[in-house]
Amino acid sequence: MEKDPRISLSVIKRLPRYYRYLGELLDSGIDRISSKELSMRMDLTASQIRQDLNNFGCFGQQGYGYNVVLLHNEIKKILGLNQDYKLIIIGMGNLGHALCNYTGFHKRGFHFVGLFDVDPKLIGTTVGDLAIQDVYSLDKYLAHNTIDIAVLTLPKANAPEAVQLVIENGVKGIWNFSNIDLQTPEDVVVENVHLSDSLMTLSYQLSGTP
Amino acid sequence: MEKDPRISLSVIKRLPRYYRYLGELLDSGIDRISSKELSMRMDLTASQIRQDLNNFGCFGQQGYGYNVVLLHNEIKKILGLNQDYKLIIIGMGNLGHALCNYTGFHKRGFHFVGLFDVDPKLIGTTVGDLAIQDVYSLDKYLAHNTIDIAVLTLPKANAPEAVQLVIENGVKGIWNFSNIDLQTPEDVVVENVHLSDSLMTLSYQLSGTP
Repeated sequence: MEKDPRISLSVIKRLPRYYRYLGELLDSGIDRISSKELSMRMDLTASQIRQDLNNFGCFGQQGYGYNVVLLHNEIKKILGLNQDYKLIIIGMGNLGHALCNYTGFHKRGFHFVGLFDVDPKLIGTTVGDLAIQDVYSLDKYLAHNTIDIAVLTLPKANAPEAVQLVIENGVKGIWNFSNIDLQTPEDVVVENVHLSDSLMTLSYQLSGTP
Repeated sequence: MEKDPRISLSVIKRLPRYYRYLGELLDSGIDRISSKELSMRMDLTASQIRQDLNNFGCFGQQGYGYNVVLLHNEIKKILGLNQDYKLIIIGMGNLGHALCNYTGFHKRGFHFVGLFDVDPKLIGTTVGDLAIQDVYSLDKYLAHNTIDIAVLTLPKANAPEAVQLVIENGVKGIWNFSNIDLQTPEDVVVENVHLSDSLMTLSYQLSGTP
């Protein structure tokens, strides 16, 4: 799908939330909703919702509202969730284990197919039906397997080297949990989860509450 | 510290990143930097940096640049990092363990003081020097301990009940990893880490790359 570069990142970042809410509506058997009702549930203004969704085409109908099934499906396609992704995790500490064990990702088409670590105590142990492999065999692995997303849950000192290796081997998506901003070519997409930054945003807000 | 409500959330969310970069500069022995140099390192424009930092006072000096020690300290104060926080974790699966074991939080003044789970196999086991407690004893615990932040790493179905309990007991900060948007009073601050949303943002961007 061609991306419209005029669509701002803040709109894009709201899309998964729409997708989540619409999924919950479907689960409760609701197949039609007005932008006003949706706005109340999502704590956004109705006009904000109309603006957001108009970026991707005309999903609403005056006097009818949104067809939940249709809209859910369209957002699924927009988010690229109508295809499957192969993921590897580099760094199988607790966080690597947590991500690998979370079944929600698999349901949405994100499949973990390779796990890597440097720790001899972890190498050879299994998570689900995957054995953790030696990170020093990663280049060989990547030469024989096409991977969409590399998940980085390793210490930040080792992250740049791992990034270079996966990029050289054609990986285009990086989900980065290492507390460092990565330098990558333009055709590589990085999504950062900086947990420390998130916690500091919380302390900023807390330190001002009475 | 009084918060200026005119300061936008996007500015606030950049502050931890400034703090991180300035800390790295200090570690490398750099105690003075121009907004131009800082902008190149951070991949922001120099004017963006000046605008951001002017929200909090006048830190730069024409022709001299920024005093790194001073600016680092000021941002530390702004982020509320000149005080300590007591945290509990509700849900001690892999993610709870990962957060509890991450030493970086402790260094910044975030101290885990109570761990809770519902699983009899986990209750009584220790992480560091803390024993995991039965979540059904949480109300009693909160009645005797003042907690700043509750970390929610439990399944989303159980999150609303846990939130109600911690709020009733005076907890003002919630770091939410459960995949649900919480309803909270105005004086309670919620910082969400929606991992599924983050991964879908990545797939959105990936599905458009060649």
